[in-house]
Amino acid sequence: MREVLAQAAFQLFLERGFERTTVDDIVARAGVGRRSFFRYFPSKEDAVFPDHESCLAEMTEFLSAVDDGDPVGAVCDAARIVLRMYADNPEFSVQRYRLTREVPGLRTYELSVVRRYEQTLAGHLRNRFGEGGDGALRAEVIAASVVAAHNNGLRLWLRSGGEGDPEVAVDHALALVREVWGSPSAPVAPAAATPASAPSFPVSGGGGGEDEVIVMVARKGTPMWRVVQQIEAAVGEN
Amino acid sequence: MREVLAQAAFQLFLERGFERTTVDDIVARAGVGRRSFFRYFPSKEDAVFPDHESCLAEMTEFLSAVDDGDPVGAVCDAARIVLRMYADNPEFSVQRYRLTREVPGLRTYELSVVRRYEQTLAGHLRNRFGEGGDGALRAEVIAASVVAAHNNGLRLWLRSGGEGDPEVAVDHALALVREVWGSPSAPVAPAAATPASAPSFPVSGGGGGEDEVIVMVARKGTPMWRVVQQIEAAVGEN
Repeated sequence: MREVLAQAAFQLFLERGFERTTVDDIVARAGVGRRSFFRYFPSKEDAVFPDHESCLAEMTEFLSAVDDGDPVGAVCDAARIVLRMYADNPEFSVQRYRLTREVPGLRTYELSVVRRYEQTLAGHLRNRFGEGGDGALRAEVIAASVVAAHNNGLRLWLRSGGEGDPEVAVDHALALVREVWGSPSAPVAPAAATPASAPSFPVSGGGGGEDEVIVMVARKGTPMWRVVQQIEAAVGEN
Repeated sequence: MREVLAQAAFQLFLERGFERTTVDDIVARAGVGRRSFFRYFPSKEDAVFPDHESCLAEMTEFLSAVDDGDPVGAVCDAARIVLRMYADNPEFSVQRYRLTREVPGLRTYELSVVRRYEQTLAGHLRNRFGEGGDGALRAEVIAASVVAAHNNGLRLWLRSGGEGDPEVAVDHALALVREVWGSPSAPVAPAAATPASAPSFPVSGGGGGEDEVIVMVARKGTPMWRVVQQIEAAVGEN
């Protein structure tokens, strides 16, 4: 029933426009009573995004069960749950993207959904980092970065008309965030002092095995993102 | 007139609540006709945030005139324009913050304003970084980080009831973003190879003058943010 209503609503929004479609039109098309609509959707806007509630629930469940070792990796993986929801239904996702661009009320609705995803990710990171020191600040900045990166990749795919695999663009975008904020094998404590030699720039990967070290020499004033990029290039990740 | 209407509206929102105040109530309190309200404010929500339009205009003007050398620093400074708007009127800012927490429609309105600031900052960075490669991606992620950091600091101050100087918390939060994404004296090209010695961890600042170098040795798998933190600590910034 929920599915039927959402489909009827979306067809009408495409045919007549969002503003010109009433809830009465929707229930007539679906062949049900007016009350049924509001049993499933608090508003017309909600019917355009029928999957976000279950997606948010899935994200919360995923994060509550995820391994503690790599919180930044975990929130990147959690963001991919949203991507899969879009990727599972390319045609619908692209049509909805176009509709949302045209209707200010839908854009605003979408912003509030995105904000809830962001807060879910930030909440997870806050728990892991702790509230003290810069834990909350770092959690919020990283969550915002993950969402911005995810949406950049998703938007490229939606603008292309849903061609190809959106995971490529999103993985690339999320890799940028991980490069800066955390790495897959990340121990949280700083590494202990290790003897090393032959400093050079750009970075050289040294040693072998678990205690492998990286040595980096850079002129002061080099932008930090550039330093990070060079370290990543040397380590051969990404 | 605009000011008078905004003040009348805000008084009524505090007295009666946002939802229960009508535009007719507002114009009656301000002693003007109904049309006057809509000449200045498209909606009741707009009257709660009367300064954002001029603040957005100021931000755009600032960014169009700013020096090209340090784009990340420039967008951080642009974000401080928003902070000053809040800091100039602590009592109003704190009351509005509390009101906004209580009214979902105002929260949504605020999200759309925040998004416009973010897009303004991202647009500036995109122009500086170029659309090619990861320019647009990096622009969007950095803009989101700056906004999240700014809002973290601003919110701390608002929650404290507007006590003290909000710039302290916001400067601290923005410093985290600059540490990761750019430094004040940032040359955009990578630094040339420079001979250096005595590598150690945590990082040691070396040399002197403009060609000063930093040498960093870390075990592979150290989270990137930790590397960045250590470099900053050694360089003695922040």
